[in-house]
Amino acid sequence: MANAKTGDIVEIKTESEVISGVLLESHDPKILLIKLKSGYNQGINKLEIKSMKILEHYKQKEIQEKGKIKIKKNLPKITILHTGGTIASKVDYKTGAVSAKISAQEIVKMFPELGKIANIDAKVVFQMYTEDIMPEHWMILAKEIAKEIEKGADGIIVTQGTDFMHYNSAALSFMIQDSPIPIILTASQRSTDRGSSDSFINLICAVKFAAESDFSGVAVCMHSSPEDKECAILPGAKCRKLHTSRRDAFKSINTKPIALVTKENIRFLTENYIKRDKKRKPEVDVCFNNKIALLKFYPSMPSKLLSCYEDFEGIVIEGSGLGHLNINVLDEHTKDHAKVLELLKKFNKQGKILVMASQCIFGRVNMNVYSTGRDLLEAGVISARDMLAETAFVKLGWILGHKEYSKNPELARQKMQENLVGEFNDRLSEEDFL
Amino acid sequence: MANAKTGDIVEIKTESEVISGVLLESHDPKILLIKLKSGYNQGINKLEIKSMKILEHYKQKEIQEKGKIKIKKNLPKITILHTGGTIASKVDYKTGAVSAKISAQEIVKMFPELGKIANIDAKVVFQMYTEDIMPEHWMILAKEIAKEIEKGADGIIVTQGTDFMHYNSAALSFMIQDSPIPIILTASQRSTDRGSSDSFINLICAVKFAAESDFSGVAVCMHSSPEDKECAILPGAKCRKLHTSRRDAFKSINTKPIALVTKENIRFLTENYIKRDKKRKPEVDVCFNNKIALLKFYPSMPSKLLSCYEDFEGIVIEGSGLGHLNINVLDEHTKDHAKVLELLKKFNKQGKILVMASQCIFGRVNMNVYSTGRDLLEAGVISARDMLAETAFVKLGWILGHKEYSKNPELARQKMQENLVGEFNDRLSEEDFL
Repeated sequence: MANAKTGDIVEIKTESEVISGVLLESHDPKILLIKLKSGYNQGINKLEIKSMKILEHYKQKEIQEKGKIKIKKNLPKITILHTGGTIASKVDYKTGAVSAKISAQEIVKMFPELGKIANIDAKVVFQMYTEDIMPEHWMILAKEIAKEIEKGADGIIVTQGTDFMHYNSAALSFMIQDSPIPIILTASQRSTDRGSSDSFINLICAVKFAAESDFSGVAVCMHSSPEDKECAILPGAKCRKLHTSRRDAFKSINTKPIALVTKENIRFLTENYIKRDKKRKPEVDVCFNNKIALLKFYPSMPSKLLSCYEDFEGIVIEGSGLGHLNINVLDEHTKDHAKVLELLKKFNKQGKILVMASQCIFGRVNMNVYSTGRDLLEAGVISARDMLAETAFVKLGWILGHKEYSKNPELARQKMQENLVGEFNDRLSEEDFL
Repeated sequence: MANAKTGDIVEIKTESEVISGVLLESHDPKILLIKLKSGYNQGINKLEIKSMKILEHYKQKEIQEKGKIKIKKNLPKITILHTGGTIASKVDYKTGAVSAKISAQEIVKMFPELGKIANIDAKVVFQMYTEDIMPEHWMILAKEIAKEIEKGADGIIVTQGTDFMHYNSAALSFMIQDSPIPIILTASQRSTDRGSSDSFINLICAVKFAAESDFSGVAVCMHSSPEDKECAILPGAKCRKLHTSRRDAFKSINTKPIALVTKENIRFLTENYIKRDKKRKPEVDVCFNNKIALLKFYPSMPSKLLSCYEDFEGIVIEGSGLGHLNINVLDEHTKDHAKVLELLKKFNKQGKILVMASQCIFGRVNMNVYSTGRDLLEAGVISARDMLAETAFVKLGWILGHKEYSKNPELARQKMQENLVGEFNDRLSEEDFL
């Protein structure tokens, strides 16, 4: 067997197949781990390997920073704030995992076309997986963005992982309102070292839109279709990751995308946005109350699980259909018929804010249609209407981050039902947007 | 003001608008409640009412059973099992809610066209909202279906509410395997008394498909588009309600529909199904372990919520993206870095079955790509692959309903990863089916 090292491109023959790819470090000494061309990893039992040859030795590609980039006076200034994710990552051949190891300066070197559109400034805010980004990080990021606006950026790009990017975009939507400039979040579904990577098109479309459109506010820029040529600009508080791996995993929910962008062209699909105005002062309002929860109901969910939320100040519930819970049947564990409803009534009286969103994802909560919904309304549960459960969670945490609301539940309930940043689409027709 | 009674069609004038619809009984004596033509209810403050006139007095429409329907020897025998829902409901003008009050016999009278396709038998199994249907009801229903198969039905139709129909269809898929005949679940998004009702097309397409196709097994029949003319037949363990109100709210997930059906025509989209064979004995295996849970993660979810699941024997976790949790950050409440991961490891050692599904809904869990996923795999979490979280929940409860599996976690984990009823689609390509 060849004396291959991690990072080498190897070809392995077993009884049944020939596998080639990048050799990774394996946790299991019995297994060889290969990163396939598809980007996925495959483990091969060493006992099954007939032969292995090295196709190419690993070369560390070091991108050196070569001084500062020249500023072109006629181009707008775009700041890229990097927070992690595969959009600016390379494979870590020691662990086999994709990790964010490229400095923000390197991003600019990797994608020189960006320099033709804008004067790019770049900064690493933090380096995290999106699923690890917590409300405290949303707040750090919002403050960084506010600083960059203050410093005169014409547009901000935030790069991160895709997993929970929709939480980030919702949080920034509430924390930075009336932004004078576009704040565009982008990411990539496939790391930059993969042939099928969406990094380049996502980043260039995000920068083009941030630099050249008259849009302002928070939006997400990701592929509009699996084809690697066009991106959709999605409203920050009304979009969601809907596919684990597709390049067009992000979709606007209960509304259309704001615009479609290619390297050459920007096409708005709506006129319903606030135009950029560098003289406008943003409403930067950075706070969050961590004592809120998101809870998805399922058949047979016992009320004792709901009791676990005693310490929380707000709960966004994902109910079924138009916003229902199993409140009409015997509680499996307590054998009490009305236990879930009684608990919700108690929570409501304690001043907790209870919000009903729908597991359906698409459409609108309407608790007036069935008696179950009416009972929940009477118990004090308020409707998230057509707002995403994830956005409702972020909105509730942000509202209850303010003392004036956390001390006054009735005011908080009212605020939850105000359309603050386009999180509701009241013009939504029943037949639209599935 | 006219002396209108509940059920009357009235026209109400206020300062700003004219509203007409059916007068409902209102909980609030200050409010008049009107069922609008759109099917939604509107409350009107009595103080704002300028005038009201009665357009039409309420007439109780009684449909009488007039003896038995004649059996036509050349037509197949289809049994409709009614379990609730708006497909066979009328508005209850006392409560304003839509409620299931029509007997199964009445269904046949309501839709005489059904009698031209098949000899219809009908039976009320129970009358419930779907969100109230619990595992114990799935078991009752499965046993009823088995009885009807035994009695020689050529096809079974199950009618219910839409909310959690996908749980019902998944449960029946596991509990009745190798069915000799089609078992088709259908429902309606708008009650039969509404102009926009989808009841008729859903029911006739379901009956036509059950009577005339060569399909066998469990599937869902619902509108394929908002247009009221065609239904899609969706695989019982791979479909989901994706819209609160649209007629085509149900979609197959990570696979194509099995067939498209109109009143005139059946068109299969796949050959990948088991053909009907009345000589085949079904595998009726009715059991369920209620000590399982479905848990959707969200940013900042504290490990103390995970601790609430100590008593459960299995947990289906809805993670982010390819199947991730926030295991790399400080726990907000305990300030412990590895608390979530440690708890999962403990649960795994206790013999709990931990399954990772994705909040993305579409696509496939792959915990090999990132280090977070690998850590979860090492902690004993198994992948739901491209299986829906809801289906994974039902499958896990069904598997652990068997003593041989609940007593042997390793065997249960293996069983969870077997493709039992088409809940996995291993031929799914990355670009497909969003």
